[in-house]
Amino acid sequence: MHDISLSQARLPATLEIEVFDEFGEARLQAIAAERALTLYLNKREIVTLMTLGADPESLVVGYLRNQGLIAVRDDLLAVHVDWDVEAAAVITRHEPDDLEERLGHRTVTTGCGQGTVFGRLLDAIPRQTLPETPLRQSVLYGMLENLGEHNETYRSAGAVHGCALCHQARVLDFVEDVGRHNAVDTLAGRQWLAEAESGHADIFYTTGRLTSEMVLKVAQMGIGVLVSRSGVTQKGVELASRFGVMLIARAKGRHFQAINAAQRLTLDAVPPRRPGDRTAGGRR
Amino acid sequence: MHDISLSQARLPATLEIEVFDEFGEARLQAIAAERALTLYLNKREIVTLMTLGADPESLVVGYLRNQGLIAVRDDLLAVHVDWDVEAAAVITRHEPDDLEERLGHRTVTTGCGQGTVFGRLLDAIPRQTLPETPLRQSVLYGMLENLGEHNETYRSAGAVHGCALCHQARVLDFVEDVGRHNAVDTLAGRQWLAEAESGHADIFYTTGRLTSEMVLKVAQMGIGVLVSRSGVTQKGVELASRFGVMLIARAKGRHFQAINAAQRLTLDAVPPRRPGDRTAGGRR
Repeated sequence: MHDISLSQARLPATLEIEVFDEFGEARLQAIAAERALTLYLNKREIVTLMTLGADPESLVVGYLRNQGLIAVRDDLLAVHVDWDVEAAAVITRHEPDDLEERLGHRTVTTGCGQGTVFGRLLDAIPRQTLPETPLRQSVLYGMLENLGEHNETYRSAGAVHGCALCHQARVLDFVEDVGRHNAVDTLAGRQWLAEAESGHADIFYTTGRLTSEMVLKVAQMGIGVLVSRSGVTQKGVELASRFGVMLIARAKGRHFQAINAAQRLTLDAVPPRRPGDRTAGGRR
Repeated sequence: MHDISLSQARLPATLEIEVFDEFGEARLQAIAAERALTLYLNKREIVTLMTLGADPESLVVGYLRNQGLIAVRDDLLAVHVDWDVEAAAVITRHEPDDLEERLGHRTVTTGCGQGTVFGRLLDAIPRQTLPETPLRQSVLYGMLENLGEHNETYRSAGAVHGCALCHQARVLDFVEDVGRHNAVDTLAGRQWLAEAESGHADIFYTTGRLTSEMVLKVAQMGIGVLVSRSGVTQKGVELASRFGVMLIARAKGRHFQAINAAQRLTLDAVPPRRPGDRTAGGRR
């Protein structure tokens, strides 16, 4: 692997402001940072991302990777972030031949944050066949427990989403951002920049909803299992079955709802039944 | 007011799929629809929106209005939505002279759903001076109670955000969509298409976070009070103070956190103190 010229422009994820509560008392509240970062690929303006700013180099690299605007890590020469001008300059060896065509179509997705996919989202196809990763219920529960320690920004400031790359129950990497799609892209960027072990991930976790864009991004990362604390949308389910992604929705405590999981999910830790032991939103 | 040629392409907001729960039991779960709708303004492709599809005509009109791509209602001649080709065709009398320039810059925001603003988001300025709407704590509590009846899709399917236009404690209009920015735009579109009484709204409510884009859109609707069940981001606070928007964050039950509210918020319903009566995320 060659060296990539990298800035180190990390900024704190939160700051404190004074608010007044329902008792009329002033108090300090941590809030999530939200910074504009305009991305230039070989001097061409691509997009402005709104981000926490906690790992901007990984974010822009992952964004370009997940948008298919950088095909392989070796194309990457330099990533320089300068907050004074709110700009990230990325230099690569090559560009897609169809760059203009790709930038011509915008799909504004239902994702939090990075709600744009260049090119036609629903025509997209993952770059690889997905592994039919099996999942044991006990592993799912272990992963959810391990994730408990990984949401610092949310706990203090709210207003962020978290995403994690896991190998079975082990959390390999975890990122929070004001938009969950920034978090996904930051994870993808770290795989290239830090050559993180998260390359071995086989389960993807998000606090956010399982929409079409999330399923597409995870499929493009070559991961076959997508777990969320939240619900799922129609196009998310459609893409998951087209790509062969197992969806585990509404995963909280012992609850979950498995979709597209036949033969791959082993129920080896069925909880004891309790009255009211039902997943929110399900038919009673 | 002239007549606008309008299609009536509303679709159901939810559908049911079979899922397997933690007990290995199959059950029916309602999920939110998520449909792609590509918007053409005078035959020019603008964007593809991912939406529930429950009020597509109002969504596309509100999107164009809030993006500043249609200046006045009288410019609007026709809105035709055809789900067979997932397209919405909008015909207007005029277009902004700087349409190309506007479409050239994309800001991918932290908003759920409509996470794109054409032009430079943070250079934007509201079209009007905002009213310094006063707010009484008792009115805020009354509004939050009245909103309780208005989240049908969320209760059955989750995975949506709700937004409401209110006049003091009264809910004038309420919209849910897979992206909360779609919901904001649908409300703005209804004001033009239905000439809804929501034109008199003085408070805007959202279930979603108070990010830069939400504050900007509400300011552009001429509303001076923005209330959310969720948290706030740094740029949301910056824009609110620049535009003079009062923010009420983390409004749930009797809790809230008021920002940029000095002199405009009257505490006429301070709740009795109870142990642990503290807003989530606040410093203890």
